[in-house]
Amino acid sequence: MTNNRNTTLEIKKEEFKNIGYQLIDKIAGFLDTIDEKPVTLGEGPQALQKILGVSSLPDNGTEAKDIISNATDLLMDHSLLNGHPKFMGYITSSPTPIGMLADLLAASVNPNVGAHILSPMATEIEKQTVQWLAEFIGVGPDYGGILVSGGNMANFTAFLAARTAKAPKNIKEDGLTSTSKKLLIYCSKTTHTWVEKAAILFGHGSKSTRWIPTDASNKMDNDLLEKAIKKDLKDGHQPFMIVGTAGDVSTGVVDNLNGIASICKTYNLWFHIDGAYGIPAAIVPELKQMFQGIREADSLALDPHKWLYSPLEAGCTLVKNPKHLTDTYSSHPEYYNFSKNEQGTAQNFYEYGLQNSRGFRALKVWMALKQLGRNGYLKIIREDIELSQLFFQLAVKHEELEAITQNLSITTLRYVPLGYGDKSDGNEKYLNTLNEALLDKLQLGGQVFLSNAIVNHKYCLRGCIVNFRTSKKDIEEIIEIIVREGKEMHQKLTTK
Amino acid sequence: MTNNRNTTLEIKKEEFKNIGYQLIDKIAGFLDTIDEKPVTLGEGPQALQKILGVSSLPDNGTEAKDIISNATDLLMDHSLLNGHPKFMGYITSSPTPIGMLADLLAASVNPNVGAHILSPMATEIEKQTVQWLAEFIGVGPDYGGILVSGGNMANFTAFLAARTAKAPKNIKEDGLTSTSKKLLIYCSKTTHTWVEKAAILFGHGSKSTRWIPTDASNKMDNDLLEKAIKKDLKDGHQPFMIVGTAGDVSTGVVDNLNGIASICKTYNLWFHIDGAYGIPAAIVPELKQMFQGIREADSLALDPHKWLYSPLEAGCTLVKNPKHLTDTYSSHPEYYNFSKNEQGTAQNFYEYGLQNSRGFRALKVWMALKQLGRNGYLKIIREDIELSQLFFQLAVKHEELEAITQNLSITTLRYVPLGYGDKSDGNEKYLNTLNEALLDKLQLGGQVFLSNAIVNHKYCLRGCIVNFRTSKKDIEEIIEIIVREGKEMHQKLTTK
Repeated sequence: MTNNRNTTLEIKKEEFKNIGYQLIDKIAGFLDTIDEKPVTLGEGPQALQKILGVSSLPDNGTEAKDIISNATDLLMDHSLLNGHPKFMGYITSSPTPIGMLADLLAASVNPNVGAHILSPMATEIEKQTVQWLAEFIGVGPDYGGILVSGGNMANFTAFLAARTAKAPKNIKEDGLTSTSKKLLIYCSKTTHTWVEKAAILFGHGSKSTRWIPTDASNKMDNDLLEKAIKKDLKDGHQPFMIVGTAGDVSTGVVDNLNGIASICKTYNLWFHIDGAYGIPAAIVPELKQMFQGIREADSLALDPHKWLYSPLEAGCTLVKNPKHLTDTYSSHPEYYNFSKNEQGTAQNFYEYGLQNSRGFRALKVWMALKQLGRNGYLKIIREDIELSQLFFQLAVKHEELEAITQNLSITTLRYVPLGYGDKSDGNEKYLNTLNEALLDKLQLGGQVFLSNAIVNHKYCLRGCIVNFRTSKKDIEEIIEIIVREGKEMHQKLTTK
Repeated sequence: MTNNRNTTLEIKKEEFKNIGYQLIDKIAGFLDTIDEKPVTLGEGPQALQKILGVSSLPDNGTEAKDIISNATDLLMDHSLLNGHPKFMGYITSSPTPIGMLADLLAASVNPNVGAHILSPMATEIEKQTVQWLAEFIGVGPDYGGILVSGGNMANFTAFLAARTAKAPKNIKEDGLTSTSKKLLIYCSKTTHTWVEKAAILFGHGSKSTRWIPTDASNKMDNDLLEKAIKKDLKDGHQPFMIVGTAGDVSTGVVDNLNGIASICKTYNLWFHIDGAYGIPAAIVPELKQMFQGIREADSLALDPHKWLYSPLEAGCTLVKNPKHLTDTYSSHPEYYNFSKNEQGTAQNFYEYGLQNSRGFRALKVWMALKQLGRNGYLKIIREDIELSQLFFQLAVKHEELEAITQNLSITTLRYVPLGYGDKSDGNEKYLNTLNEALLDKLQLGGQVFLSNAIVNHKYCLRGCIVNFRTSKKDIEEIIEIIVREGKEMHQKLTTK
């Protein structure tokens, strides 16, 4: 018997089984009927606090089975269900059922994937996961990398590696104040907010980011990019990295990566690709052209918890030369006894990123890659794209909808009441008000969950399909819902 | 029926139940007999790779049940078991069984706790968890904060908030190069490696950290601290934060926090406490005195995955005034539609830290707090401390062991062969070699898992008990193991 201390924290074998089975049953039932529930109840904080119960830290304990049962009900009945087939907001995916079980197993064995000696098999599985992800997107198995919490951290991890590689060597000791040159970052104006956050947090300041305008197809304008670099060099600054986006958050556009790669070569800059959302689409042969240049990148970010359908959290940083990570993150405090393995090849993941202790988030990604294989993923990702194209086409055909953009698996569109189709300024303003109000209503209404994009000053509804449960039928129904609710909102706004 | 797409990623109801039950059974059995297994097999990377199987990304899929079954065996048979009663290395705890189930539930509902609208109930539970943690350590329920991946991130999150609060306002836009003053951080020389990592990554450079020597009791010498600040001010630098340590990694010492607080007041500096490991001990009435001053801190880091026994990952940043977090991390890109709740009080956690999308790591912490309550935690933490004291006392009594330090739940000691007790330099050097070799052997041997500390140039074995499964019997057996293996190692080294 394990528990000689007889603590109430231990859950004895039979009880663990009973509670575990009940939870498994509830999850199985939840997943089986998830399409019959509202996507969300749209409850506000006060209503939820009432349901949760406002209380101080309890003095005394509660039985484990009651806690689990209560939490299950609270969460299954009062959450936004991103596993719902009609969830297509932002870029959170329907989570894989195998990933749910993976998180249970990871927490049970609880390897600390910060050092090999602390997590022998888990470290090997994470290494294999990184290698497989590199193979998946087609950059080859020699890349190194690390699993992180998500897109911000995946991009941050690469940003800092880029700086170590390109900035004067002494900034690790002396800091940014030791160089009078401004270290500059270049990216498209559509790039995710992480770039600004990184520039601020890592001490460069938001003004060190050059937001390059986009061309007609919403890609970074590479001519303007090169002009900006030239000007900054002339002004005595030090450009150090360009961020290419592979699937921008709002509309899914992929920058001209090949073009960026050659600019990076010319000016000796670090080439990073933010592919957090879109880079898994590189697996689709028809899109090969669109992703040309990814092998030139020094680093890439991709998020398995987006288009590889992993439960949160799972992001990944890949680098062409893993030494850039250890150069940035490695340290050897005297209380670490980690590097003595007789075989001499142990990889300690704490030297690859910002964390020291690390959970085993790789497991859920590895399991899903095994469950589907390359071909299984190709099929689902292709279907997501086709459904998004269908969404766009149905909007094109509908006389009360305006289809705006379609790239990868993101479609943007808006509701346009009959007779409001001309482009007078007054109409445009009203259409923005109408669609914003419509989105707010849809987001709390529970029939469908979309998010927004602003494209050429147009407030759009945006559907991002990284959802293996969404089907043709859902898309057709969503079109109906948008039109029905749009009509109603228009009536409400115009009869006020 | 949910799955109209008929993807192989879906696991149908009955199959999910079958696989789930099997996994639950295996975990229940694993936990029930964890004390009978070796703590680790000490296998090296190559052996593990052979067992795992080196392969490229598979083209085709595998059945979910086979993947789970295979992964379970790989992990349960080839991991370091930090749930084992004789695991007391570094500061990873025995994970709570309820936390394992919590991670399953979190992954199943998969709330994205970045925004309230995306995770209504989960956000409320995380808010309550933060409040309860503040109550737990005794700083009061008005503190705000956020759950993060662990100690590094908890401390980083506070570090950046400190900088925003104390540095010139324009550094968010203009960066660190805009100020000629060096922004300086002060901490004890025993502080964890995160401080140096933060100084480097956030652009200050490692030289911006002032490592203050410790006094005889291994606490930061507050007189030297104040002298250092005065000198730096005179030299035209800008001190901005002091880090007090509440439970240092090597020996568990808690700095004189009250003294640091008053120095912070005098010089208008941010007071941060790194309590990642030790601050839960503030719950123990006998130790109240030791933690005096924690209410003066502007920010604190504590790790539920350390002394609150949560599975990885769970760290927490607490701040007296949550506005310091939003000032640092908030941003409002046009594609976020998050701040419109009618009740006007929705809290979006992406504005509180470095991540945007966030998993629901609060759930496992919240459940354990409910399961034990304040009194349950008090009992277990106190027992951990008493066991550590017993460990020390048994070493004191044993003629072949030298007890070195005992603070909170950390004991350091070393093996000293009979006749090696005098302090000649030659002996000291040999004792270091001997104990280092002994630790390496113990770490791979599987009988017990300790880590190391270096105290006054002595290489020590170090046991940190944040383990609700460790009992008196384990401590007694560990003493025997150390002596037996120490003797053998001594023989080996001296008969070479």
